[in-house]
Amino acid sequence: MSDLSTLIVSGDPRGIARGISLVEDDANAGASLIGEIFSRTGRAFLVGITGAPGAGKSTLVDALVTRWRRANQTVGVIAVDPTSPFSGGAMLGDRVRMQAHAQDANVFIRSMATRGHLGGLARATADAALVLDAAGKDLIAIETVGVGQDEVEVVGTADVCVVVLVPGMGDDVQALKAGIMEIADIFVVNKADRDGTDRAVSEIEAVLGLHPYTDGEWRPPIIRTQATTGDGVDALIAAIATFREHAGALIEIKRRQRIEAQLRAIVADRLMARVESMLGSVELQHVIDRIAAKETDPYHAAAGILEKV
Amino acid sequence: MSDLSTLIVSGDPRGIARGISLVEDDANAGASLIGEIFSRTGRAFLVGITGAPGAGKSTLVDALVTRWRRANQTVGVIAVDPTSPFSGGAMLGDRVRMQAHAQDANVFIRSMATRGHLGGLARATADAALVLDAAGKDLIAIETVGVGQDEVEVVGTADVCVVVLVPGMGDDVQALKAGIMEIADIFVVNKADRDGTDRAVSEIEAVLGLHPYTDGEWRPPIIRTQATTGDGVDALIAAIATFREHAGALIEIKRRQRIEAQLRAIVADRLMARVESMLGSVELQHVIDRIAAKETDPYHAAAGILEKV
Repeated sequence: MSDLSTLIVSGDPRGIARGISLVEDDANAGASLIGEIFSRTGRAFLVGITGAPGAGKSTLVDALVTRWRRANQTVGVIAVDPTSPFSGGAMLGDRVRMQAHAQDANVFIRSMATRGHLGGLARATADAALVLDAAGKDLIAIETVGVGQDEVEVVGTADVCVVVLVPGMGDDVQALKAGIMEIADIFVVNKADRDGTDRAVSEIEAVLGLHPYTDGEWRPPIIRTQATTGDGVDALIAAIATFREHAGALIEIKRRQRIEAQLRAIVADRLMARVESMLGSVELQHVIDRIAAKETDPYHAAAGILEKV
Repeated sequence: MSDLSTLIVSGDPRGIARGISLVEDDANAGASLIGEIFSRTGRAFLVGITGAPGAGKSTLVDALVTRWRRANQTVGVIAVDPTSPFSGGAMLGDRVRMQAHAQDANVFIRSMATRGHLGGLARATADAALVLDAAGKDLIAIETVGVGQDEVEVVGTADVCVVVLVPGMGDDVQALKAGIMEIADIFVVNKADRDGTDRAVSEIEAVLGLHPYTDGEWRPPIIRTQATTGDGVDALIAAIATFREHAGALIEIKRRQRIEAQLRAIVADRLMARVESMLGSVELQHVIDRIAAKETDPYHAAAGILEKV
């Protein structure tokens, strides 16, 4: 085992930070690291948290971390920050707020950008979670803004997926029917002091009512919270614990899905690396010239490239 | 040329609709279609429009379409709708608003979901734009919410990229420095009747000031609009026209980037299809079993799979 792996397994914060940077930035060294620490993983419980910009996700995560620490659990947080400027002001302010835990060696908080990861965000966050897992963190919160395929995939394969909504969603609840039902294990209506909370809850209930839950099937509870005061956060903690106890088979399915998604991401990444190195030659520019001149089209050109692989 | 291609080239709306569905849903038939119509493409001018949920992008596109039609230009609109529920209410309301043009055979409007495209959103929107281009549309607007790597890529390789902001962005402008400078050709501050418009403009100016624009290099103008009243929309149209006249070399670079991105997406897609068909066997479940049992790790397992390719 390398020095870095030893540091990580000992729970050393600088080791964890270096390990996560490695899996983010260096495909080969990151792969070796995961290979070394992988046998030490599988103990941590992954809590995915997603919701609109401004829904109060970070404040909620902060409140969860405070309570988990009181219960003597060690905690890792992976906060996926949109790289785009359009996601609301949360991006800068919330990371500062989380520094309430900065002096606590048993809490490790890491922001990750949504863009620019080799093999995609899902691969990068899965690997970062493995590093935190190997470092002995009991609970790992993964927080994303629920926009975009990658971001949804990231929380959808956590052990439990918490979807955070706020009163006054209006038409958004319509979209629940289309997109989010399959990933939410627990709904949170945050800012539950606001007008429209009852309506938001009953709208979610109505959507849940469309699905015929069978005996023993997990039905997502709806928890009302006020993350800023802490109201309802204990109920959310209890709901997560209940899910963990009663939905073991579902969690097992998610873990397999997570492994599968990661495996596919790695395979795709490496195949593309091979193609890139092949396309890196002058030939690519020549092919683009031919397409631009309408001598061929992108599909025939792609078929030509693939024949040479 | 197939019947469908003939219909598309004649500008028939049902033909266009079927063509776009084909490139969205059927990899092989879509590829054949693009192969047939590709020589008829290259005339249309692609206008990418991106911005935060609620920035008024759809209203702005609507106002642009009205003016383009007055100038006797034919128009296509590809509106990329987030599949996620967290993107703001625009998703449903705005498509309705665009129906102002529903009776106009020279305007074709199509919504596309962000998720579930073979080969990714960039490939699907590029192909849909080719269908509209072959159908003789003079101008094609592509509208996305500016969150997520795919969405940004889609507008970043349009012929011109319009980034729509609203007053009161606060810290978001900080993020401009990091993420959006390289894709914006024109900035719009919409809802310019609101307090904070001057501040938003000067914040964008400050960001632009960090870049040393050389003689002849395009410097993104900042246009103030009120899409709901139409104020400033003519100025935006003029800015787009100026860009088109004066930034020919830049547009040529973007067209090559678009071809390259599409080529890579197709190659990646087809390679993954091969891997999928290989992984589709019971073997994949066996590999996942071994990873779940910690007998191997995802990277070694991926390497094993790739050896067999």
